[in-house]
Formats: sequence, structure tokens, C-alpha cells
Amino acid sequence: MPDGLVTLVIYDITEDDVRLKVSRFLRGKGLTRVQKSAFIGSLSVAQRKDVENGLAKLIYGKKANVQIYPLTPASYSQRIVLGVELRYDDQDRLIA
Amino acid sequence: MPDGLVTLVIYDITEDDVRLKVSRFLRGKGLTRVQKSAFIGSLSVAQRKDVENGLAKLIYGKKANVQIYPLTPASYSQRIVLGVELRYDDQDRLIA
Repeated sequence: MPDGLVTLVIYDITEDDVRLKVSRFLRGKGLTRVQKSAFIGSLSVAQRKDVENGLAKLIYGKKANVQIYPLTPASYSQRIVLGVELRYDDQDRLIA
Repeated sequence: MPDGLVTLVIYDITEDDVRLKVSRFLRGKGLTRVQKSAFIGSLSVAQRKDVENGLAKLIYGKKANVQIYPLTPASYSQRIVLGVELRYDDQDRLIA
């Protein structure tokens, strides 16, 4: 994880098309998918604000909840990952 | 958020019954649901280890990914929440 503000974005979005727009948006901003509805990456303060504004627009008026957590490097390095890695294609479909 | 280790648990679980077991487990451990597949709460070191062990057992051999992040109080207080609050019943169904 490079320098910058390590940022975790998690979302809960009921509509498939909105959820897909959000995952594409986050990937386009250079974040890495860590779960179906969770992305992480290192962002400058300006980039983080840009992500926040973009997400707000994408989910406006939708049944959607997005949470953005700034993480310290220690929080990131001390995270625990259990289970298997699940990967998704560019349509948000699980790659078997 | 009381004292202790603020802990964020996010999960990506394909099977409904396994996902439901995990949400009930986390609620039973005193964590608070913040999204369909995200819980947060303050845990002692021992409690956190207990949660970790319990989750590992629940998802053993399943198509499941669970990530546990220790958060600083600053990370928690600086989180940004966008959109609406989505609530779920004890069957993990969205409450309209």
C-alpha cells in the first residue's frame, strides 16, 4: 500500500445497476476490490474528496448506504482476512 | 463508541444460510450492524480473538471472505456515511 490516505469504502446498495456503477467508479479511481462491496486504496486528500463527491452523486435518491473509513497504516496491516479470496468480473459476477 | 478496540467486520458470503449465521453471531457478540454485511463495535483483545475464532469456524470450507479491521477512534469518528440508513430484520431481510 503506497503513501497517502489509506481509505476503505464499503457499500450496501440494493439496485444491481447502481451497485455496478459504484464498483466501476471506484475501480476507475484506482481503488482495489477486496470484497464484492468493499474497495481499498491509497488516496490523497483531494482524491478522497473527489471519490466522496462522485459516490454521493451516484447514489443520490437510491436505496444505498456508502461508508468511507480513513485507515491508519497500522489498521490496514493488522487487518485479519479469513476464508477464501472471492473475485468478480467487470459485471460484478463472481468468478467461480 | 465505548472504550476498547473498535473493530469493523465486513464479509462477503455467497450462501444465504452461512451469511445469516454470521450476522447472528456478530450481533450476539454485541456488535452493531452498519450495513447488510458490515458490523462494528468495541471489543477487548480477548473478545476480538473470540470473534475471530468463531467466524473462522462458521465459514470454514465455504465460499466466504471475512475481513476484520481494528480502527483507531479517529478512523471511526472521521468516517463518512453517504446515502440512507438501510435496516434489516433478524432474517437479514431489508426493512422497507
